[in-house]
This record gives sequence, structure tokens and C-alpha cells, in this order.
Amino acid sequence: MTHSSKGAGAKLLHGRILEDTDHFVEAFTASVSFDQRLYRHDIRGSIAHCRMLAHVGVLSAAEAEQIQDGLAQIEGEIDDGAFQWQTGLEDVHMNIEHRLIELIGETGKKLHTARSRNDQVATDLRLYLRDEIDALLALENALASALLDLAERYGEAVMPGYTHLQAAQPISFGHHLLAWFEMLLRDRDRLVDCRRRANQLPLGAAALAGTTFPIDRSFTARELGFEGVAANSLDAVSDRDFAIEFTAAAALTMMHLSRWCEELVLWTSQPFAFVSLPDRFCTGSSIMPQKKNPDVPELVRGKAGRVFGDLAALLTLMKGQPLAYNKDNQEDKEPLFDAVDTLRNCLTAMLGLLPHIEADTGAMARAARQGFATATDFADYLVRRGAPFRDAHEAVGKAVAYAVQQGIELDEIPLAQLKTLVGDRVEADVFDVLTVEGSLAARDHIGGAAPAATAQAIKAGRERIAAADS
Amino acid sequence: MTHSSKGAGAKLLHGRILEDTDHFVEAFTASVSFDQRLYRHDIRGSIAHCRMLAHVGVLSAAEAEQIQDGLAQIEGEIDDGAFQWQTGLEDVHMNIEHRLIELIGETGKKLHTARSRNDQVATDLRLYLRDEIDALLALENALASALLDLAERYGEAVMPGYTHLQAAQPISFGHHLLAWFEMLLRDRDRLVDCRRRANQLPLGAAALAGTTFPIDRSFTARELGFEGVAANSLDAVSDRDFAIEFTAAAALTMMHLSRWCEELVLWTSQPFAFVSLPDRFCTGSSIMPQKKNPDVPELVRGKAGRVFGDLAALLTLMKGQPLAYNKDNQEDKEPLFDAVDTLRNCLTAMLGLLPHIEADTGAMARAARQGFATATDFADYLVRRGAPFRDAHEAVGKAVAYAVQQGIELDEIPLAQLKTLVGDRVEADVFDVLTVEGSLAARDHIGGAAPAATAQAIKAGRERIAAADS
Amino acid sequence: MTHSSKGAGAKLLHGRILEDTDHFVEAFTASVSFDQRLYRHDIRGSIAHCRMLAHVGVLSAAEAEQIQDGLAQIEGEIDDGAFQWQTGLEDVHMNIEHRLIELIGETGKKLHTARSRNDQVATDLRLYLRDEIDALLALENALASALLDLAERYGEAVMPGYTHLQAAQPISFGHHLLAWFEMLLRDRDRLVDCRRRANQLPLGAAALAGTTFPIDRSFTARELGFEGVAANSLDAVSDRDFAIEFTAAAALTMMHLSRWCEELVLWTSQPFAFVSLPDRFCTGSSIMPQKKNPDVPELVRGKAGRVFGDLAALLTLMKGQPLAYNKDNQEDKEPLFDAVDTLRNCLTAMLGLLPHIEADTGAMARAARQGFATATDFADYLVRRGAPFRDAHEAVGKAVAYAVQQGIELDEIPLAQLKTLVGDRVEADVFDVLTVEGSLAARDHIGGAAPAATAQAIKAGRERIAAADS
Amino acid sequence: MTHSSKGAGAKLLHGRILEDTDHFVEAFTASVSFDQRLYRHDIRGSIAHCRMLAHVGVLSAAEAEQIQDGLAQIEGEIDDGAFQWQTGLEDVHMNIEHRLIELIGETGKKLHTARSRNDQVATDLRLYLRDEIDALLALENALASALLDLAERYGEAVMPGYTHLQAAQPISFGHHLLAWFEMLLRDRDRLVDCRRRANQLPLGAAALAGTTFPIDRSFTARELGFEGVAANSLDAVSDRDFAIEFTAAAALTMMHLSRWCEELVLWTSQPFAFVSLPDRFCTGSSIMPQKKNPDVPELVRGKAGRVFGDLAALLTLMKGQPLAYNKDNQEDKEPLFDAVDTLRNCLTAMLGLLPHIEADTGAMARAARQGFATATDFADYLVRRGAPFRDAHEAVGKAVAYAVQQGIELDEIPLAQLKTLVGDRVEADVFDVLTVEGSLAARDHIGGAAPAATAQAIKAGRERIAAADS
Repeated sequence: MTHSSKGAGAKLLHGRILEDTDHFVEAFTASVSFDQRLYRHDIRGSIAHCRMLAHVGVLSAAEAEQIQDGLAQIEGEIDDGAFQWQTGLEDVHMNIEHRLIELIGETGKKLHTARSRNDQVATDLRLYLRDEIDALLALENALASALLDLAERYGEAVMPGYTHLQAAQPISFGHHLLAWFEMLLRDRDRLVDCRRRANQLPLGAAALAGTTFPIDRSFTARELGFEGVAANSLDAVSDRDFAIEFTAAAALTMMHLSRWCEELVLWTSQPFAFVSLPDRFCTGSSIMPQKKNPDVPELVRGKAGRVFGDLAALLTLMKGQPLAYNKDNQEDKEPLFDAVDTLRNCLTAMLGLLPHIEADTGAMARAARQGFATATDFADYLVRRGAPFRDAHEAVGKAVAYAVQQGIELDEIPLAQLKTLVGDRVEADVFDVLTVEGSLAARDHIGGAAPAATAQAIKAGRERIAAADS
Repeated sequence: MTHSSKGAGAKLLHGRILEDTDHFVEAFTASVSFDQRLYRHDIRGSIAHCRMLAHVGVLSAAEAEQIQDGLAQIEGEIDDGAFQWQTGLEDVHMNIEHRLIELIGETGKKLHTARSRNDQVATDLRLYLRDEIDALLALENALASALLDLAERYGEAVMPGYTHLQAAQPISFGHHLLAWFEMLLRDRDRLVDCRRRANQLPLGAAALAGTTFPIDRSFTARELGFEGVAANSLDAVSDRDFAIEFTAAAALTMMHLSRWCEELVLWTSQPFAFVSLPDRFCTGSSIMPQKKNPDVPELVRGKAGRVFGDLAALLTLMKGQPLAYNKDNQEDKEPLFDAVDTLRNCLTAMLGLLPHIEADTGAMARAARQGFATATDFADYLVRRGAPFRDAHEAVGKAVAYAVQQGIELDEIPLAQLKTLVGDRVEADVFDVLTVEGSLAARDHIGGAAPAATAQAIKAGRERIAAADS
Repeated sequence: MTHSSKGAGAKLLHGRILEDTDHFVEAFTASVSFDQRLYRHDIRGSIAHCRMLAHVGVLSAAEAEQIQDGLAQIEGEIDDGAFQWQTGLEDVHMNIEHRLIELIGETGKKLHTARSRNDQVATDLRLYLRDEIDALLALENALASALLDLAERYGEAVMPGYTHLQAAQPISFGHHLLAWFEMLLRDRDRLVDCRRRANQLPLGAAALAGTTFPIDRSFTARELGFEGVAANSLDAVSDRDFAIEFTAAAALTMMHLSRWCEELVLWTSQPFAFVSLPDRFCTGSSIMPQKKNPDVPELVRGKAGRVFGDLAALLTLMKGQPLAYNKDNQEDKEPLFDAVDTLRNCLTAMLGLLPHIEADTGAMARAARQGFATATDFADYLVRRGAPFRDAHEAVGKAVAYAVQQGIELDEIPLAQLKTLVGDRVEADVFDVLTVEGSLAARDHIGGAAPAATAQAIKAGRERIAAADS
Repeated sequence: MTHSSKGAGAKLLHGRILEDTDHFVEAFTASVSFDQRLYRHDIRGSIAHCRMLAHVGVLSAAEAEQIQDGLAQIEGEIDDGAFQWQTGLEDVHMNIEHRLIELIGETGKKLHTARSRNDQVATDLRLYLRDEIDALLALENALASALLDLAERYGEAVMPGYTHLQAAQPISFGHHLLAWFEMLLRDRDRLVDCRRRANQLPLGAAALAGTTFPIDRSFTARELGFEGVAANSLDAVSDRDFAIEFTAAAALTMMHLSRWCEELVLWTSQPFAFVSLPDRFCTGSSIMPQKKNPDVPELVRGKAGRVFGDLAALLTLMKGQPLAYNKDNQEDKEPLFDAVDTLRNCLTAMLGLLPHIEADTGAMARAARQGFATATDFADYLVRRGAPFRDAHEAVGKAVAYAVQQGIELDEIPLAQLKTLVGDRVEADVFDVLTVEGSLAARDHIGGAAPAATAQAIKAGRERIAAADS
């Protein structure tokens, strides 16, 4: 943290700068400590650039080969941990270029022809993000399948459905899990859209205005598997939409996971006791010997905050920046990397955990019978017997108030008393609709909670995953 | 703000609730002050629901007609400002249903059969958002066209391109505007994706589990122009992804606008003086008689923050919520409405302003000649004469340092001196590449700054808008 | 939303501006729709400014009296709803000044001598915020007292204390409520600090540089009850720290309330059933007749998000703004107002609700006996008998595992079996420490859960409130 | 990322947990990779805890000495890089305790008596933050002094003051820098308040309810320099206000720095050219040989976003958490550490840079003469000659409009023409008030831009720093 005018040595980019960089400033402004994770993508982009330069005649075939060999060797060195990263060389790009010149001499100095770090880093980041999205999509598909398996196992396990965390209507645990499935499929869909928009080649924009060399950007795009070429050079080097859009999608997914995990934490709490987690996904307490804490769901829930924070950081970062590239943008990487890592880890954790959760279907069923969860069925029954819904609702409300007062459940009110409370439309067959099983089975339409509808949804779900995979 | 046990009168939903609502609580929990803006969508959804109930035989044709007439009358009353909104009736839904019962009596009490406010409000919000997205897409298309027109006008107007707000390389003002165009087209694309995902019918999910009535959700979806039916009832009532995804897309667009506006503010500042705005888009000062302030760009820039805030609010809102609907979700509306309104107003403001900005092309061109903006061209020249790029860069750096010291521009260094500084490769023809016009014209490839490339990009841009419109 | 060159009429501030303002721009840039709520503070500031100008001889005594009379009349008109607000006059300041000139003629044109709207609005906002903070402090004090009363009522009501939402150790409900009390007192303390820093006079900074008139800022500060005078004119007009600091403090308080409310929602849920809320603080369902939803806690929890969003908006707003005042800052008001209103309403709601919650102490006590909550006491017992804590922890862990397997509680394990599990240190007296009452009473130190410690804390709490009030 | 049931080995906390932790879960839930930076504070807290236990007789003097010696040795091992951190031991606390037991055997197992990791980590974090705040305060004081020195150097250097980035009134560069000084002193003040509130001892709260051992928390507080004892055990382990309050204060400071840096970036841009930075604080371009980019200010500006993000992360993290400790809270550390590191680095960078910036006072003065910056002085002149301010403002506005039309400055309008434009009040002496020097000198009151007022403010500023230091 001390300032010193002694510089960092071998800068590649003196240009007009006459003084060596202040030591603190060198460390403060360098990005190599975190952008070195882009080395494979940087090398891949350089190889494509080099081949394009040869293709248009700016490099000779021999030069291009020499450069590609050098880059391949550097990739090996980094893979093996043998590479010496230097803070004084600022970033992953300059570290690799510097080593290339060490390895192959003069020809290495030609690689940076017709490009700038501005378009280079934008290319690296897009390649990186594309790879990560592909890995995330695979994880999401696996997790979606796991949810369908679990939903199948518990498709008839009745549990209370809650609104306002008050018992509302009976559902099945399987039906509940399908709600999670729907969230995940939207997440998947958003990542696919984000990938498409990100998959455009910035290279060729050079510093901000393009280059005077006769480059062929479509060639480079094909080499790197990009779907298109960024259509404006200023935009190409200053655009970070892909990072923000990804992080927004990741934030949404983390929000979903935080909801799942809130429920898992509730369900493993003693008053609910709906679900238990395997010991190997829990940890204990340093002081309380009896504790078995649902650490994994809690931590995933907590990690939502950091991805929301990453999104806030990126939006703030870009706000009000004049074009084109500004040094501020170096700050784009850490939030993006953090969002990627956090999402990948949390999906991995859920994928490990979910297939092993055990539902206590007895406890769930008992809870479903609390809280007058079939009161709506009662009202619907009255409607089918001719009452307008609003009147039926009011009438059943009175029956519930009576039951609360008496400390009994709805189906424990004698028929005569029921008639007094809700009118003569009610008959003995009402007691059939007041069972949780009857209530559940009756919700048999697309998206409904009935086991038959759930089975249908699981089948359709498998087809949707298969369609996404193909 | 005082608490009182005297209630608000005519509640439709007493159910089991025995006490009237506390006065403060009634106002605190009511949403009608802000959700009344959904009335058209609420009525539209109710009409579709009613027609579906008739279609499946839950309502008679006569009942359905009566309800639809009543709803049409209510819509007219609200349009005319004659409708009496009541806080005691909580929200837009209950206000309308209550009025319907007033108007048509018993039959009105049947409208709420087989639905809940939970699926009703989710439907209203999606209908609302779909309409707003369509309006925003139209605005974005108009703005995109305006940018192309402006880019065409200034396609050969040379100006300095900046990186780090330091003069970097010559570009044209038209080329710069095309960077804005690219941002806007991505924004458009994101809205289209968001619309597609939002355009799914929640109705039929009822409270959370579906309903015991034999509903036909596909019928309702067709009536309302939805592309599909939400596949899980719990998810259908608890999902607010569409609001978050929209607000994230709006935040990105606002970030873009904040960048444009930062540049407009810079360019209208006296030291730049590149651009002037018509007086009718500016305001003065209460104390300084000479002031002509770029209020519109400043305000748009400032409004980015509120949409970022709306996004933070919505993500936080949903974090950790157990399924299905919770009252927390009432807080989804104001941030969404604010994001919609802010984005629409800011796009409208820019659409009004942009066609009328006047560039001072002379000032721009003068600035382009400052700051050694053709130094890269000089280095490229040396590369074409055989120097490796890295050496050429270093050599030209020395020439610039010399020019800084002498207080002259690059093309004012005599050739002999140039040879001393960068070596014998340099010849008299270098002075051609040191002109800003030459530099600009040389960047002639897809996305490059050359006027020819810009003209090409404008043509392609018009086709992209047309394709989006069709 | 249409643009038109027909202007808004009677502008006070034409200055050099030749065109009338575009109609849309007029509405877009006007703030009077939301800043009119500052009218009392604006008038109060104007009166002080006017008295200062008379004090230093810039206005005559007669002029000052005329102006003060005019302003008093305007305040009356606004109080009575008789004032005609005009969007064309932009903001609260110009509306009032314009009316003043209507009322008293030429002299009214002298009020704006030696000031600008820049320092005027900064003064208004600080006066406004000071008043609101005082009201909030009074609410927080009342709420703190209510918590102490409730804690006193339930100081011996044993309940399970949770970590990770797993039963951890017995506490009392009163002790739990005192945790809420501590949060609130820190909130109070932060508001006091914020008030002190906000309570500095900006007036006199004029546009940004001060004024050429011989003003006496200390006089004005005394008139308005400010503790000091802002020491730099540029800072005085561009500083919005007070709004951000307040909103950050409000966000923290809302975070606290969201935690309280999460617990209330949990505790009123059927599986917990620890607490019930009066019907008048709850609402029902449009479809489910049995529902009694904890709307107030849910809504307060949900409103945390909007204040977090207000904070994000304000920080983003100010980021990267060059000095001094920019139009962006007009966007400071709505987030601040929203944070103030939300916090005030939520505190009011909690103050209404909390004294009326009813704890089911039987249910709480029963739950406290679940989940081996006295396992730590067991380990402590072994430590007192010579075991190192880490060994005692491990030994008791084994006993718990045994009890889980057997489906019994710790105190149901026979002594002989206990000895096998944890060793010979254990004797029959262990069963005393395994009761929840014994466990609770044993935690008798500052901050501990024992009823005696709680009683002490309540007493101290009353003194802390009294000290804050005095 | 693969899941495996093979565990991590030597867990200290098996308790009732029968399975070894899943490998992925072990890494996912461990915090030692980032919380090891707390080791000094953890050891310091353990020593104080151990001394307290001896003081009250729970440990013998010999045991306490043995433990303290062991901890001292461990601190040395960590300092020297010889310590073996193990992920399987979860966190910094368990790593150190495990090593202690290795080193001193059975007695080491007694250290954790009467505490939990819950109160331990809360203590560590507060000790850590207190140290960091002290370091930050020292940096802020140094930076404040540097600003005063710079303000003194440039106290008479006239420059344009801007509002809306339009030339407003002449100020001095020194006066401008004093605005920065005021921001910084508020930042300092907030840190002092935050330190006070953070400086309370949580230790003794144990897991959440206190302990059954006869602890003396005041003793521990004195040992560790805490100003008080956390008054409620649940609050003590679940409170993270100190982290949020600090991060909010850091976010405000970063917002201030982003404003300074925006100005530095503007001022070093060619159109302004007010300021130059030493080469050693700048870097070049990989492609453009002429570039000298203000990297340090840009990067500091960009880093504002990450601290805003840290704040969003922490608020989100805590929202809706039921008491007491939840695993979510492990996520409190990285955002806090990041906010601390970022703020410290940015303050260090500014402290290194600011004393070395060079103002081009000639360029500043020339710019001050553009843009009619003395128009307000002209209006004030007319007021002193009897015109109501509002009329004077209007009249001068006309004069400015005339000058704009003619392409001249205000003082270039002939007197006769001036009389036509603004009326007969104007005389030849007006030209004195139209000079920027006259305008500047006339603003001579507390906080005004006049050199005399600035000198006064610098003197007062030095006293304020000295008072803060003492």
C-alpha cells in the first residue's frame, strides 16, 4: 500500500508514457489476479484472430503457424501451473502476449495487429460466458429431471397447500414440486435467450473504430462459433449487456432457489417436520450436541443476496458511462464470475440434495387435515347446488367460525347444525367433498393439483426437457 | 394513522373474520389506490372467464350475457370518471365485483365461481404488461428509425472517438449514433422475449390448487390472446418472473439511455460544444440569467436509478417467499408500474429530442485533430512497411512523446525528425495516413467507422427494423 | 405524450431561453406533482430568508413584512386546498413565488434575492426530513415501550429458541421480544445521528458559489433551528448525503421489521400456532372461506424491498455526478418520500398490532420440549463434573442420536442407558437440568434468557427510553 | 463438483450427525477460505474468553496459561505461513481449536466452554471491523489534509463553476476542492458513529440464549476494549447491523469518490484540459500509442458499483430471517471484506494521486470567461440599483440572448446597447462586476467562493481535522 515511483519492469505498452507505474497503482489497476481464468478463451480467440490474419494475407502461413504453436505451448504451461503470471503485465492478455514473444521472438509481436485489448477482452468474456451457460443449462436439465422423478414419487402424497403460510387447500407434494419445475424451465429459457444475444463477435472493432487492415470478421466468427458479427465497433467494445442480462437471469434463478430453500428449511423445522435431509447434507453445532441444521438450503437461500448484489454492481458500473471503453469496465469481471460460480454451485448443491430428501407423508397428510383446508370445496358444493358463489363463500365462512369456536373440524359439525349455518342446500353427501383426498382429486384440469393432472404434467415435463435437449 | 376498531363497512369477504378491519389497517393493506389502473384488464379477464364458464355450462347463456353487460357498463363508468372507488373494498377486483352485484344483483355473485383473486390479479398484470410492452416496442422502433435518420445526416461528420474520455481515433458522428442504435435493438429483442414468456394464462389456478369446476383453460387463453396456459397452479399464482424480467430489461434500457444522455450533457457543455439542443427542450435557472440547461438528458440519466431501484425492490420482495401467494406480493405493482411509466416517458422524451439536436460539425472536426488521434494509423502504416505491430506501437509512442514535448501535432513533425524517432521505414506518404479523413475512410469493414461502412450499416439497420415490425 | 412547441405560458424563468417549453417536456421535467408536499418547509425557509435579508438591510422592514404576510396567506390557501398548482411553473418554489407576486406585486419579486432554487430546495428537504425524523423517533419510542410491556407480560413464557429454524435451547417469549427491542434502539440511535448531520443550513450557497449580497447565514440558521451552516457552497447545493443516510437507516429498520414479521407469519401458521392476531388486523380470501391471513406482517415484510430499492435508486442517482447541482437530483425526492412514508406506515402498523397479539403459551411450552433443546445443558452438566467441553459435546451427541433412533426425548432415556452413552459422570440429578424450566433459569447473566435477567433487561430498557426522550 | 459420501475426516462437531459430510457439501459450506483472515481477532477473542473463564473459576490458572500459550503459538504459525488450513474443519474457529487440541491436548477441549461459534464469530467480526475503521479513519484524515493543502495551493485559481455541466459562475479550484473536503468529513463522522455502535461485546450470548456457566461479560468486554455488552443474547448472535451500517457508509464514500473521479476524468479530457496527472498514475493502450489514460480515477469510479452491490447483498441477506442465527449469515463476510478492501484501496489510491495533480490555471481561467458566468453578478448589480431580483434576472437574460446572437461575451456589449437591453439602471461601472475576478471576490461570506472565504475555510478545516484526531 505504499506509493513508489519504482516501476514494475517490463511493460509492453509504454507508448508515450515516460514514467514507470507507481507500485501501488500497478497492483491497484492490474486485473491479472482475476482475469487469468480467461486464458483458454483468450488463447482460443488469439488463434482464430491469427488464422484470420493469415487468411487475408496480413500474416504469412509460416508466421501464423509459429504463433499458433506458441500459443498452444502457453496453454499447456498454464494448464500445468508452470506459467509465471506477472502483475506488472497487467492482465491475462499482456501476460500471454509477453510470453509468446519470449517463446517465438519477433513474430510474436505481430499477433496484436488489427486488434486491441478492448475487442479482445470483449471476445474472451463472451466465449467464457457461452461455455458457462452451456454448463448451467446441462445442470438445469438434470435438476429438472430430478424434480420430475421426485414429483412422480410423491404425486399422490397429500399435503397442505399454503397461501399466506396459512393452510389453504390440499395439494400433493408432487404437485408442489412441479411448481419448482416450472420456475426452473423459465430460468432455462432465459439462459437460452441470453446465450443467443451474447454469441456475437466483437473482434475487429479494435480500440473502438475498427482497423485499417483488410480483416474478415465473418471468418473469425465462424472459427469461434459465433452466430453473428457485432454490427458497430463502438458498441462492440463498450457493450456489457450480455454480462448484465446473464446476471439478471442468474438473480432470478437464485430468487427461485431461495424460495425452494425457504420451504425446505420450514419443512425440516420441528413444527412442520414434513421432510428430512440426509445427515451428509447437514452439519451440527459447536455447542448444541443435538443439532442437525439444514445448512445447504440456508446457504443457498443466503447466496441469493450476493447475486442480487452482483447485478446491482454491474448496472451501477455501466450507468452514465460515455462511449467507448472506459477503465471502469475492468470491474465487470468479478461480479460476472461471482454470479456464474454462485449459480453453478447452488444448482450443483440442489442437484445433490434433492433426490435424497425424504418426505414424511404421514405428517403431511395430518397437517392437510388441519386448518379447514376443504372449506372452498364446501363452497363449491353449495354453488353446484345453486348458490351464487359469493353467498356460498359467506355461508361457509360462518361454518368455519363456528368450528373454530367449538375447536372442531368442518366435517365434525353435525349435518343439522350445518343446515342451520349454511342453509338447506347442504346434504349428507357434503362429507365426501370435505375429505382432503376428495378435494385433491377434484382439481383435475390442466395445471390442477389432482394426481391425474399431476401425472399428465410430469409426462409433458419429460417431453419439454427432451425437446430442450435436442 | 390512528387505529380504530370501527370497520370499513361493506366487505365482500368476511368469511370467518368476525371483527371489522381496523381503520388504519384497511388503508394500509388496500391496493385500490394504485391497482385501479388495471381496470380494463380486470374487466377483460372477467369477461373471458365468464364466457368460459358459460362455454362449460357453469353459467347459463343468459347469466353470462347479464354479467358481460354489467361489466361493460362498469368499464364505461370508470372511463367517464363516474365510478366510486372504495378503499374498504380493498382492490380493483372487489370494487368491480361489488359494483357488478349492485348493478345486476344475484347473478353478479356468480362471476367469482372457479377463480380467486390470486389467479385473477396474475392474469390482469400479464394482460397489462403485454399491452405496455407493445406500446414500448412501437416507441423503440420509432426511436431506432430516428437514430438511423440522424446517423445518415451525420455519416461523414468526423468527430473524435473517445476511450477513457481521451481522444482515441477519428470516427463519424453517424457511426457513433449507430452504437446507440445497436443498444436499442438489443433492448427491443429482450422485450420480445419477455413478452413471449409473460404471455401465459394463470387463470384457472384459482387460489393455488385449481378448482373443482370443469373449466376449460385453453378456451380462456384463446379469448385473451395468451400463447399458452400456465402449467402448474401453485406456480401460476406465485410467479412474478414476468415483472422482474421486464424490470431487468427496462433497467438495461435505462442504463443505455443514461449513457446517451451523459454524452449529450458532455457534448452540450461549453468545453465540448459539439451539439446544441432546441430551447424548448431546455430550462433556465432561477438565479443565473444566462443558463440553458440540458434538463431532459440530465433527468433521463437520473431516472436510471429509480428503475434500478424498482428491480432491487422486486427481487428483494420475492426472495425467500414460500409458495404460494403471500400478501407481500401486493408490493409487486408499484415498482412494475413505475418501471413501465419511467421507461415509456424517457423513450418518449428521447424520441422528441433526438431529431432536433444540432451538431456543430466544425467543432467536432477541430476536436478530432487534437490529441494525436491518428497515432494508430501511423503504427499501422509502419506495420504495412514491415514492422511488427508491437515495435511500431513503441516507435510511434516515442513520436507522440516528442510532439507533446514540442507542443505540436504528429503531422507537424518534419520527416527527418520522424525518421530519427521511428526509423527509416517512414516516408513522405505517411502524412496521408495522419489526416483524420484518411484515418476514418480506412476503417472500411463490417462495423467499421468508415462512411462507406456506416452507410451500409444504416441500410441494414432499416431492414432489421422492418423485419421486426412485420 | 405528444410533443408540441406550444408552451406552458407564464414562465418566471425565461432568462435567455427563447422558445416556450415543449408540452411533454414541461410535464416530464416538472416536479410540482410531488414536491408540493414541501410547501410548509418552503414557506418557512422563505420567511427566514426574508427576515435575514431585512436584518442585513437588503430588504426594508416594510418589504419583509409584506412578503411574510403574503407567504402566510399562501400557506393558508394551500392548507385549505384553495391553491392552484400549475405544472407550467415547474415546482413548489416557483408556484409559491409566482403566487406571492400575484398577491403583493413588485415586492414579491425581491424575495429570490441572494438565493437560488439550488440552495432553497436543499434547505426545504432538510427541514422536511428533520420533521419526519422527529415523528419517526416518537413512533420508535412508543413501539419500544410497547415491546417492553409485551416482554414483561411474557417474561416467563417458555418457548423454543431456534437457530437454523431448528429447536436450539429454551428461551422465554419475553426474552425473544427483547431482541426486537435491541434492534429498534439501534435504529433510533442511527436516526439521531442522521438528524444531527442533516441539520445544517445550505441556504446562502445560492446557485453554487454563494452570493454577492452581504448575507448573514448564522442568522438564518438560528431562525430555522439548524445546528450549523454548511461550510462550502458547492457542497451545500450538491450534497444529498442526508437523504441517502436516512434511507440507509430506514432500510435497516425495514430489514428488522421484515425479520419480526417473518416470525409473526411463522408463529401464526398452523404448524407453529404460537401466536394469534386480532381479526381486525387480518383479512380473508376471495375464494377460501376459512382464511384468516396475517396480512399486516406480510405486507410490512414485503415493503422492506421497496425501501431497499429507494436506497439503490438514490445511490445510483448520485454516482458519478460532477459538481455542483444537476437536474438528475430532482429524482432525489420520490425515493426519499417513499422511504419516509413506508417506514412511518410500517411502524404505525406494528405499533397498532403488537400490543394485541396473543401468545398461546401452552403451545410454546410444548414445542420447547421437542427437539432435545436441553442437550447443551446436559453437556454443561458433564463439564461441571469434569469433562472437557468438546468431549461432553460429543458424548451428548451420542445420547441424542440414541433418542432419535428410539423416538424418545432425552429425559426418557433411563439412567443406566445414559451412563452407557455418555459415561459414568452422569447421575440422577441430570434430570433436573434436562427440564426446559431449569435450562431457562440457569442462563442468568447480562443478556441471558433467564426470567431474572429478562426482568433486569426490561428495567434497564425503560431507563434507556426515558434517557432518549429527555 | 462431484457428490460423494466419503467424508472430510476429522470433524470436531459430529454431535448427533452420523454420516460424514458429502464432499461437495463440505467445500460448499466451508468458510475457511475467506474467514481465515480473521485469525488474529479470533485468537484475541479466545484469549480474552479464556482469561474470563479463569477469572470466574471455570478454568484453572494453569489451564488458562496453557491455552494462551497454545494460541500464541498458533498465531505465530499462521503469521509465518506454516499453519495447515483444512476445509474439512469448516472455518477459522474450528481450525484453530483443532490445532490447539493437537498442541496442548485435553485442556484445549475446554476452551469452547460457555461459548458458541455464533457469539464467537460475531465477536471476531466486530474486532476486525473496529481495526479496519481505525485504519480508514487515519486514511481519511490524511486525505482531508491533502485536500486542504491542494486547496491552499489553488485558492485563487479561478475556474468555471458548473451546474448542469454548463458554466454557471466563477469559483476557484481551491473552493471546489473544499467541497470534496466537506464530503470526506461527513464520511469520517459516519465511520465514527458506526464504530461506536459496533463496539459492543456479543460474547457470552453463546448459541442464542446465554450460558449456564457463571460468566463475567463485563470482564471480557474490558479485556477486548469494547464499550459495552450486547444486552440481549438472541440479538447478539443474529445482529449484523454493524456490517450493513459500515457498508452503507462505505457506499456513500465511494459515491463521493465517484464524483471526484468523474471530475478528474472530465478535467483531464482534451476539451477541458484543466488538470494533468503524473504519468506514473496512468497507463497506455495496447493499440493506440498516444494514449495516456486516467486509469486510477476511472477505476475508482467503477468500484463504486461493487460497494453498492455489497450493500444490496447484505440487506437482501438479512431480509426476512427469523431469529436467531441462520447459516445464511455465513454470507455476511465476503461483502463486508470486499467493502473494506475496496474503500481502503480507493482511499489509498486517491491519497497517492491527489497531491500530484497539476492544474492548468490558464486553461481554467480562460474557460471561466466563457459562457456568461458573470450574468448573475450583472443581475445582482441591477438589484443593488433598485430592480427587483426577478426583473433583473429577466433583463439580464435578454442581454445574454443578444450576446449569444452576436457571438460576443457580456462585457463586449457596448453600454448604450446594454441600456437598451436592461434599462437605464446600468452604468459604466457594471463592467467591473462582469470580470470573473470581481465576481469571485464578491462572494465573501461563510462558505462562499471568494479567496478570503476559502482561506478562512482552510484554516477552519485544519482545526476540524486536529479536533477529530485528538
